[in-house]
Amino acid sequence: MNIAMLGSGFIARFYADTLHAQRRLDRIISVYSRNEENAKRFAEDYGLDIYGSSMEEIINNEKVDIVIISLPNHLHEGAVMACVEAGKAVLCTKPLGRTANEAKRMLDAVEKAGVFAGYLEDLCYTPKFLKSVESVNAGSLGKILWTKSREAHPGPHSDWFWDKEQSGGGAIIDLGCHCVEIGRNFIGKAVRPVEVMCWADTQVHPIDAEDHAIGLVKYENGAIGQFEVSWTFRGGMDLRDEVMGTEGTIWLNSFLRTGFDMFTTGKGAKYIAEKAESDSGWLFPVGDEAHELGYPHMFTDMFEAIDKGTAPRETFYDGYIVNAILDAAFLSAKSKLWEPIIIEDWRGDEAPDEKKNFTSHDADYFLIKKETLPNGDEKLILKHKETGKVIQKTTKA
Amino acid sequence: MNIAMLGSGFIARFYADTLHAQRRLDRIISVYSRNEENAKRFAEDYGLDIYGSSMEEIINNEKVDIVIISLPNHLHEGAVMACVEAGKAVLCTKPLGRTANEAKRMLDAVEKAGVFAGYLEDLCYTPKFLKSVESVNAGSLGKILWTKSREAHPGPHSDWFWDKEQSGGGAIIDLGCHCVEIGRNFIGKAVRPVEVMCWADTQVHPIDAEDHAIGLVKYENGAIGQFEVSWTFRGGMDLRDEVMGTEGTIWLNSFLRTGFDMFTTGKGAKYIAEKAESDSGWLFPVGDEAHELGYPHMFTDMFEAIDKGTAPRETFYDGYIVNAILDAAFLSAKSKLWEPIIIEDWRGDEAPDEKKNFTSHDADYFLIKKETLPNGDEKLILKHKETGKVIQKTTKA
Amino acid sequence: MNIAMLGSGFIARFYADTLHAQRRLDRIISVYSRNEENAKRFAEDYGLDIYGSSMEEIINNEKVDIVIISLPNHLHEGAVMACVEAGKAVLCTKPLGRTANEAKRMLDAVEKAGVFAGYLEDLCYTPKFLKSVESVNAGSLGKILWTKSREAHPGPHSDWFWDKEQSGGGAIIDLGCHCVEIGRNFIGKAVRPVEVMCWADTQVHPIDAEDHAIGLVKYENGAIGQFEVSWTFRGGMDLRDEVMGTEGTIWLNSFLRTGFDMFTTGKGAKYIAEKAESDSGWLFPVGDEAHELGYPHMFTDMFEAIDKGTAPRETFYDGYIVNAILDAAFLSAKSKLWEPIIIEDWRGDEAPDEKKNFTSHDADYFLIKKETLPNGDEKLILKHKETGKVIQKTTKA
Amino acid sequence: MNIAMLGSGFIARFYADTLHAQRRLDRIISVYSRNEENAKRFAEDYGLDIYGSSMEEIINNEKVDIVIISLPNHLHEGAVMACVEAGKAVLCTKPLGRTANEAKRMLDAVEKAGVFAGYLEDLCYTPKFLKSVESVNAGSLGKILWTKSREAHPGPHSDWFWDKEQSGGGAIIDLGCHCVEIGRNFIGKAVRPVEVMCWADTQVHPIDAEDHAIGLVKYENGAIGQFEVSWTFRGGMDLRDEVMGTEGTIWLNSFLRTGFDMFTTGKGAKYIAEKAESDSGWLFPVGDEAHELGYPHMFTDMFEAIDKGTAPRETFYDGYIVNAILDAAFLSAKSKLWEPIIIEDWRGDEAPDEKKNFTSHDADYFLIKKETLPNGDEKLILKHKETGKVIQKTTKA
Repeated sequence: MNIAMLGSGFIARFYADTLHAQRRLDRIISVYSRNEENAKRFAEDYGLDIYGSSMEEIINNEKVDIVIISLPNHLHEGAVMACVEAGKAVLCTKPLGRTANEAKRMLDAVEKAGVFAGYLEDLCYTPKFLKSVESVNAGSLGKILWTKSREAHPGPHSDWFWDKEQSGGGAIIDLGCHCVEIGRNFIGKAVRPVEVMCWADTQVHPIDAEDHAIGLVKYENGAIGQFEVSWTFRGGMDLRDEVMGTEGTIWLNSFLRTGFDMFTTGKGAKYIAEKAESDSGWLFPVGDEAHELGYPHMFTDMFEAIDKGTAPRETFYDGYIVNAILDAAFLSAKSKLWEPIIIEDWRGDEAPDEKKNFTSHDADYFLIKKETLPNGDEKLILKHKETGKVIQKTTKA
Repeated sequence: MNIAMLGSGFIARFYADTLHAQRRLDRIISVYSRNEENAKRFAEDYGLDIYGSSMEEIINNEKVDIVIISLPNHLHEGAVMACVEAGKAVLCTKPLGRTANEAKRMLDAVEKAGVFAGYLEDLCYTPKFLKSVESVNAGSLGKILWTKSREAHPGPHSDWFWDKEQSGGGAIIDLGCHCVEIGRNFIGKAVRPVEVMCWADTQVHPIDAEDHAIGLVKYENGAIGQFEVSWTFRGGMDLRDEVMGTEGTIWLNSFLRTGFDMFTTGKGAKYIAEKAESDSGWLFPVGDEAHELGYPHMFTDMFEAIDKGTAPRETFYDGYIVNAILDAAFLSAKSKLWEPIIIEDWRGDEAPDEKKNFTSHDADYFLIKKETLPNGDEKLILKHKETGKVIQKTTKA
Repeated sequence: MNIAMLGSGFIARFYADTLHAQRRLDRIISVYSRNEENAKRFAEDYGLDIYGSSMEEIINNEKVDIVIISLPNHLHEGAVMACVEAGKAVLCTKPLGRTANEAKRMLDAVEKAGVFAGYLEDLCYTPKFLKSVESVNAGSLGKILWTKSREAHPGPHSDWFWDKEQSGGGAIIDLGCHCVEIGRNFIGKAVRPVEVMCWADTQVHPIDAEDHAIGLVKYENGAIGQFEVSWTFRGGMDLRDEVMGTEGTIWLNSFLRTGFDMFTTGKGAKYIAEKAESDSGWLFPVGDEAHELGYPHMFTDMFEAIDKGTAPRETFYDGYIVNAILDAAFLSAKSKLWEPIIIEDWRGDEAPDEKKNFTSHDADYFLIKKETLPNGDEKLILKHKETGKVIQKTTKA
Repeated sequence: MNIAMLGSGFIARFYADTLHAQRRLDRIISVYSRNEENAKRFAEDYGLDIYGSSMEEIINNEKVDIVIISLPNHLHEGAVMACVEAGKAVLCTKPLGRTANEAKRMLDAVEKAGVFAGYLEDLCYTPKFLKSVESVNAGSLGKILWTKSREAHPGPHSDWFWDKEQSGGGAIIDLGCHCVEIGRNFIGKAVRPVEVMCWADTQVHPIDAEDHAIGLVKYENGAIGQFEVSWTFRGGMDLRDEVMGTEGTIWLNSFLRTGFDMFTTGKGAKYIAEKAESDSGWLFPVGDEAHELGYPHMFTDMFEAIDKGTAPRETFYDGYIVNAILDAAFLSAKSKLWEPIIIEDWRGDEAPDEKKNFTSHDADYFLIKKETLPNGDEKLILKHKETGKVIQKTTKA
């Protein structure tokens, strides 16, 4: 397929490096940038024939099958609408909108027009994540109780991120969108997120938006999806996820501890490490950064979906739900209250089954815990089903 | 010094194993248990001449220099008062009280009587923790912005933990007391904790108390002390701490990943692993469990303090502050609001200096970020001091 | 490019899974197997139109551009010769031959015929390895002194591996070929390997070949390339490399510790883990196994080289050198001597510069070491350039 | 017990820090140094009343119960003989001698005189090691096939280490003594070590002794104890052990990866890290260095043995065996042959049972391997008991 790239910045280059690696079928053929010079430089770097500063021209070029939006957040809606107008398949980088309203308008437009629309949420496509979700879906962790997704680094690459008007917020909108969608995938996209409590602060940088935030997203079935986002972290890019279920646990580390440790005195050569904060001492590179961040699997899913006429794993609807959750997070950070998540158009399950199945020890008692003590004694902790009294029974070793 | 032990359960045995190891000077000479049989068994196991089910007798024995309270939470206050009555130095296991009120009465009593009182908060004495606090105090991490302390396992050993009346709560009172005090040590004990937001739920076990909770403790200087506690974790005992400061980061793992990995098919022999949930496959033992959990350094600090007439690192006042914070956490879990922390007797700093020192790029601009891009370009993100406008300047490589 | 696959077993399927993933340009179109049924099953599984049990027919089909040899070791030579006959580009799985003689005949044949020939040494293409070699080549580790490559698991998948006649040996030929080539890449392919000391034994399995071996390959510049291979390891597949240089160190873990930890009680679901030895407890999956093992980058390099008319990173010449080293290792395991490596056709550097550049402290002394002691004292260890006497000078803190 | 310390350098201070920590019963009361000034400084630092430069006076002081030898290697024999003369219990730091002959004379002298003699091999007392040996002895790993012990750092602290005459060698004698004894403990002290192959070189430092060596110690039962020692490692102190048995594996990391990770920009404060090679970036401190290195458990074992009249875990006999193994290693490094280990006085088992017990599949076949393939098929690899033919049987999923 032939791809038009809108935008020529950091993320556009990351996407292009991915798409033009590993002898893939689908290629970028053109690029748009608000700045003609930047478009030209990008076109030269990636060997594209077509470039320009007219978005409409680039989108409407008849050779173009798919448009990828790699623009600042405040330009997503306009770009999506232009694709809809042109009837072109569109893939939009994360977050979809700055707000749920914006996202909803984009969702409605692509659905009404019937154009293919994919949400480029790369961190829900990392190989570790895909395999984890598969295990969770297979039941290896039992019922999911809690997830934590953490993304923290010293701050983003471009000016517009730091300007609330253009970006829609700070670390919450930039990083929280990843974390929230990671949680949804583990807990189940059909489970309704109901309310959010969020702390946010501007602790370090001279900006108006938050540079650090922690949030708890509560789902209808009682599960919690925690996010931890920061632009104040020192030490590189911290990308970690955790999942707790009734039958197991998953810990993922996608960047700083992936089985690649390097020490250098720095005397031999200057090491140019990506997003690292030092070039000597112990360093923790990743093997193939794009792969580790999910880009190849993401684009494969998108293009396969287009070919097969199916939905990709991550859709504009997902992007809309994420924005709805983040809207509530921003509100909560100000109101200091658990804020309800407003979803006008809920497409998942209703009213989950809340009954808990406790394990019975016998007719009278629930089993709380069974344990072998260090001295070999076996201990049972039991609760009477009617009186609620807790007792223990120890069998000496 | 001669020590009387009150209690003969899991924690009493852990303390005794520590005190009677490594040829230490100070020895347990007597034990009290509500159950005479248990007292006798304990005395036999540790070679003690004196045991009994009269707490007063054990405490008042003239050979006894120090009393260690290893009793269920609801019995702490009575035991402390008995020590005060007897004028004996007293060391009380965590948490000090079930509530701040209880803790305050104990604090007032020991201070009025002038007896030495130590708070046995072992996890603030692990060797990794002590060295971390030293680094933080030396300034290696700059200003502390956030800490996270996590303790999670499948649930405690004795029946009374699971009974809210006796314990004062669930995972929050059992594990949260550790996590909260770990956060205080990193952020600074002189910095006032002001409010708490806490989520808690009973997700798995057939009990009235919470078996899972997440809390954020906000300090007067803007720092956040996060705690994550659970009795629903599968995989062993998860003990991890993190600290983020303006100049650095610390990650501690005190149990499941300490440089000791073992795989066994289980065919050779049954491996008896402490608190582990399996005895074959990959297992993660710790070398010396008591040491890893801080017990030896804790008792050394306590006895040295008594010898020198100084205060130990962890005092009843610390125990009281912890209870005050947990009180607010319990309230918040119900009210779903940020709850103020009520400290009647604040002994730390007042009104911190809140001014932030932003880094100037030049007379007109603050520096937000300086970065080298993958292609070698150097990028500055700047904010105008008056207009607030964010710009970027790129120097091509 | 259109690919013919010779062989339909484990490795053929791994290659096919890689080639048909991620929307790659180059596709397998046909398969040969000695067993027609197996060829048919493979063709069905991968959607191939052409299959059969006549190797010549499959190779000579005019649609075929490239032939991949995924056959047992004793069939490599015949297959290569058939490709040469047909004038087709050929990619051969590792090891190239069972002996250097076999490899040399294949090398000579492809070079004489002028057909493209690539050596499918996947572990020299893992993303971590590629980035490591890049760092080493850039000088980040200074001069390389020692490398260690370790591959150990409970034994291979197919019967022929375990039969010395067909395979050419045991763990040394199966796994040592990877390890030796990894060492060569780090130390420098132009540096001549001169002799080998190898211990090998059959410790566990009822076979004639070795199931465990350790070898040291000495290079002309004094560097050592160590290999550790075993079919007796319990715990999964252990794939680790280490590099020591005068200015740094690299540690790679490619399988069991890659930032993906999972615990499952096994009650929720049976987890099907690749090459793992258990399906409950702590498990260590990898994200994308083919990627982690280097397959995608390997094929990309091969096809790009064909397109551009250049040599791939790993050639039949490399395969020949590896066989020459392994020949010496087998000899050494029997003779218990350091055995010389016989290379008839050496194409690398001759006679390395052996002069060591010691660091002078002053006109009279070499500096052995400079160190800050725990008490802050600074200590210099010096050696007199003429007398050789070692002294120390301490400057108190 | 009252202890006299011979020596006042790095290791003497480490021992003293250990002995005077954690309120231990046993105390150092006096110190000898060849240099009166150093003795005085040490005595002041540790609050000792007695110090001097006459070794005999210090040893013979009647208050002294035990003498600890913390002197350079070439002075061990003289000091041991002086203790024997005085009839005092003696603990000697590692290695016992520079050669087996030296060690044997010390062993004979203490045994003839009947004085208690302990070998201060701290790394066989680290908590992780003690628990590992316990697991191995309990059979959790089945039969031990191979061990690897690795100690590598940038070089030792004092001048005499670097002088072959005084130390007896380089990295082999300094570090190899630890590694060899670690291997013996895992494989079994009663199993006779029979021969050694060793590579050694002076790769970096301007010295006569080796600064890097790898050795394989072969035991009578076929097990291999590998050692890797270096004074050329960059990155801190690398202390790792591995054990492979028929039923399991152990991996120990005692220094650089123990669950304590720290990043610091270095702007907040200079971090003084022990043996680290940098003071900013990612650092890996250990909690309690003496504990992690085994000192407290080592001295406890020694003093308990004296009290109880038993042998300690590590005796002069062990020191002698270690020296015998290292003698063979030095020879092998020169001769390039597997050198026999000469043990005049073998006290372990004779003639081990060599019969291997292969697993039968049925009357005709041995089972080589049973495996589940990725596609779910189950595969058996079998070997005919008489013909030796290897076959496979696959059951489709």
